[in-house]
Amino acid sequence: MTGVAESATGSATELRQAELHASLGHPLAESMDFLNGVALRYPGAISFAAGRPTERFLDLDDVHRHLDLFHRHLVESYGGDQARANQQLLQYGRTKGIIHDLVARNLAADEDIHVDPESIVVTVGCQEALFLCLRALRRTPDDVLLAVRPCYVGALGAAQLADMAVLPVAASGSGIDFADLEARLAAASAAGQRVRAFYLVADFANPTGTSLDTAARTRLLELAARHDFLLLEDNPYGLFPADDAPRPPTLKSLDRDHRVVYLGSYGKTGLPGARVGFAVADQPVRTPDGRAELLADQLGRLKSMLTVNTSPLAQAAIGGKLLANGFSLRAANDREREVYRGNLRRTLAGLTERFPPGGGHGVSWNTPGGGFFLVLRVPFATDDALLELSARSFRVLWTPMHHFYGDGVPVAELRLSVSNLTHEEIDTGLDRLAAFIQSQTP
Amino acid sequence: MTGVAESATGSATELRQAELHASLGHPLAESMDFLNGVALRYPGAISFAAGRPTERFLDLDDVHRHLDLFHRHLVESYGGDQARANQQLLQYGRTKGIIHDLVARNLAADEDIHVDPESIVVTVGCQEALFLCLRALRRTPDDVLLAVRPCYVGALGAAQLADMAVLPVAASGSGIDFADLEARLAAASAAGQRVRAFYLVADFANPTGTSLDTAARTRLLELAARHDFLLLEDNPYGLFPADDAPRPPTLKSLDRDHRVVYLGSYGKTGLPGARVGFAVADQPVRTPDGRAELLADQLGRLKSMLTVNTSPLAQAAIGGKLLANGFSLRAANDREREVYRGNLRRTLAGLTERFPPGGGHGVSWNTPGGGFFLVLRVPFATDDALLELSARSFRVLWTPMHHFYGDGVPVAELRLSVSNLTHEEIDTGLDRLAAFIQSQTP
Repeated sequence: MTGVAESATGSATELRQAELHASLGHPLAESMDFLNGVALRYPGAISFAAGRPTERFLDLDDVHRHLDLFHRHLVESYGGDQARANQQLLQYGRTKGIIHDLVARNLAADEDIHVDPESIVVTVGCQEALFLCLRALRRTPDDVLLAVRPCYVGALGAAQLADMAVLPVAASGSGIDFADLEARLAAASAAGQRVRAFYLVADFANPTGTSLDTAARTRLLELAARHDFLLLEDNPYGLFPADDAPRPPTLKSLDRDHRVVYLGSYGKTGLPGARVGFAVADQPVRTPDGRAELLADQLGRLKSMLTVNTSPLAQAAIGGKLLANGFSLRAANDREREVYRGNLRRTLAGLTERFPPGGGHGVSWNTPGGGFFLVLRVPFATDDALLELSARSFRVLWTPMHHFYGDGVPVAELRLSVSNLTHEEIDTGLDRLAAFIQSQTP
Repeated sequence: MTGVAESATGSATELRQAELHASLGHPLAESMDFLNGVALRYPGAISFAAGRPTERFLDLDDVHRHLDLFHRHLVESYGGDQARANQQLLQYGRTKGIIHDLVARNLAADEDIHVDPESIVVTVGCQEALFLCLRALRRTPDDVLLAVRPCYVGALGAAQLADMAVLPVAASGSGIDFADLEARLAAASAAGQRVRAFYLVADFANPTGTSLDTAARTRLLELAARHDFLLLEDNPYGLFPADDAPRPPTLKSLDRDHRVVYLGSYGKTGLPGARVGFAVADQPVRTPDGRAELLADQLGRLKSMLTVNTSPLAQAAIGGKLLANGFSLRAANDREREVYRGNLRRTLAGLTERFPPGGGHGVSWNTPGGGFFLVLRVPFATDDALLELSARSFRVLWTPMHHFYGDGVPVAELRLSVSNLTHEEIDTGLDRLAAFIQSQTP
């Protein structure tokens, strides 16, 4: 960090944050800084905070192998033309991506989603896909987004970057409070706002771990059609159910109206270090001169001015993994799935042991159907000062739920992430967490 | 492309482009589409249009080697900890990047720029770096950008994505028309606009090929200090001078006030397929509660909501190349530099042969000091219909200069790019270009 530098001309540069983009001074930005900082300050703390996928199977040898496999695939598809294969892999590339055909096959194999590869935009992670959608849909300040609250922080942040207002929808035990949703739609209409889309994670959401059942998904599709808004379905955790019970179909696979933009990520199932995600945006778009295009083409135009194209090298690492696994990532993630299931099971059992039913401790929690997260309800508000105390004196980290409401108002909940821990760390971590909670509830 | 799909609910989705972000219907977006499309429609045409770097030395074996070299570097710096090295390379990573220390050494070695690695943000190409700067600086509609016109299309596009107005500054033979610049500053002030920054490419600019001399650079720094705006110095071509004459120093290396944000790219000198660039943003920023930060930290916060982090895998490909070359890319690009020099020389000689001095043909051109581009002045306005005719009937592509003015008004100039051609293609291409030009000037 530097302070203000004096100069020969006597006019040293100093910018004032209050004169930069409004998102920079917003509580949301401070959230992220605080959460990152507290983890760095207490490296000895066991962290139930970080939602990163498990690292134990990441191997650079796999990356080399996948790059070569994808390169061979290119050479074959170009009839032996090595130069053209090199160009595709190592040069500036097609804006909407070079693995769109493989992604389409992956969606068909793993999610029963069948789309034209031309409707796919390969992005720098799902985050870029989400920002591109919001940027496309936000033309005026009256274009707004709906999202269940508490919400993935990255969605709130992407909306801020696009200067797009987010209207919160209350959550319920089953995911969405539909009465509140209908009320929000009515209020928006009365206020002259246009709801362009509803962002949601239908399977094992972040931060709640909740999933929508099939009836709720169908109801949402009907509402979206009736009120003419899109559904932005983000699905990073769908391949990690806690058991093998049949799963509801994705909203996109139920979609008959091109109502759903499906936002995908290879950050958990592919390779986090590649930073590759995608949007399936097959919505028809009519241009002023009457041409028929796709929303994917609009997103591509915006992307060309944001990142030009997603790194073909990074795409090749994912493309090679898809080719190596017959376009399905389910079996390829068997080990990872077992880690997350085992961690979730261990955490839930460990909580029950330390906070038994009828124990009068005031602590309860949900039982997610899968994914990385669960929510602990505790008999005290969880603010950042408390997290700092928990880290410093009890050496355990978790995430205060207020960060997912985006308004800085502490609530009596905290999020636990179980994705990047060993069983020993879970056991010790829960001991520390219990000690912390007990210290707050005399 | 799909048309409108009918649905069971009878409420098929169709978006109207006119209700999406304003950049989508803008002439600039149509520019890019047209230019991309015409190249695809005429694959047999020789292209003086595409500004891509040469591909002839791109090799996947180098990528494998560089990834391993960077991995070994990580293992060493972590005292043999393979797990930690894997984590750094293959997991979600540090927002501002994982090769910032290597980039700092590269800047010191190649550009005499000496900065704290904490002031560097590694981005998805220079394009993301530029967008982040504009997003940070554009708080209200009165925050505007200056840019020399004709301008790199990507800069105009990034400004549109941030809803930031761009005020054009006239070019001159030596780069910037300073009288026009001062007039623009006065007009902006009178209109209540705040000029936040001036975007420029000081060396071998796109599209003009012009470079600023040292006196102009110093004058620009003084103006920026006097009127309190930043200089966004984009330098993709600096390592490709046409001869070995001493080069003016970068604006950043002359900067004593933290007035310059240096935007770098490894797209031409590193590996285009990695998509890695960076911003050096060491400007002090004062927060409302009095803390001293850097502009790089603000860019990092915005980036975390846009792309989360730049692919560590892609960064490793660049990091490994930097390590393999003692942090300098000058010698590593000797072959590429020779290609561009040779192509420029051949093109200039070929133009002189076909359009000799005193020949009464009305064709003239500039002689750039390096880079990929030169501008041909011709005795007729060059519009897109003419480019289509040139492609179809004469099988040669070039770029109508109006695309770099961003207003769709044809001018009597065209840009030639010489970067991705062989000598034979240049010779044949110039024959075709001469035939086309002669067909327009009876």
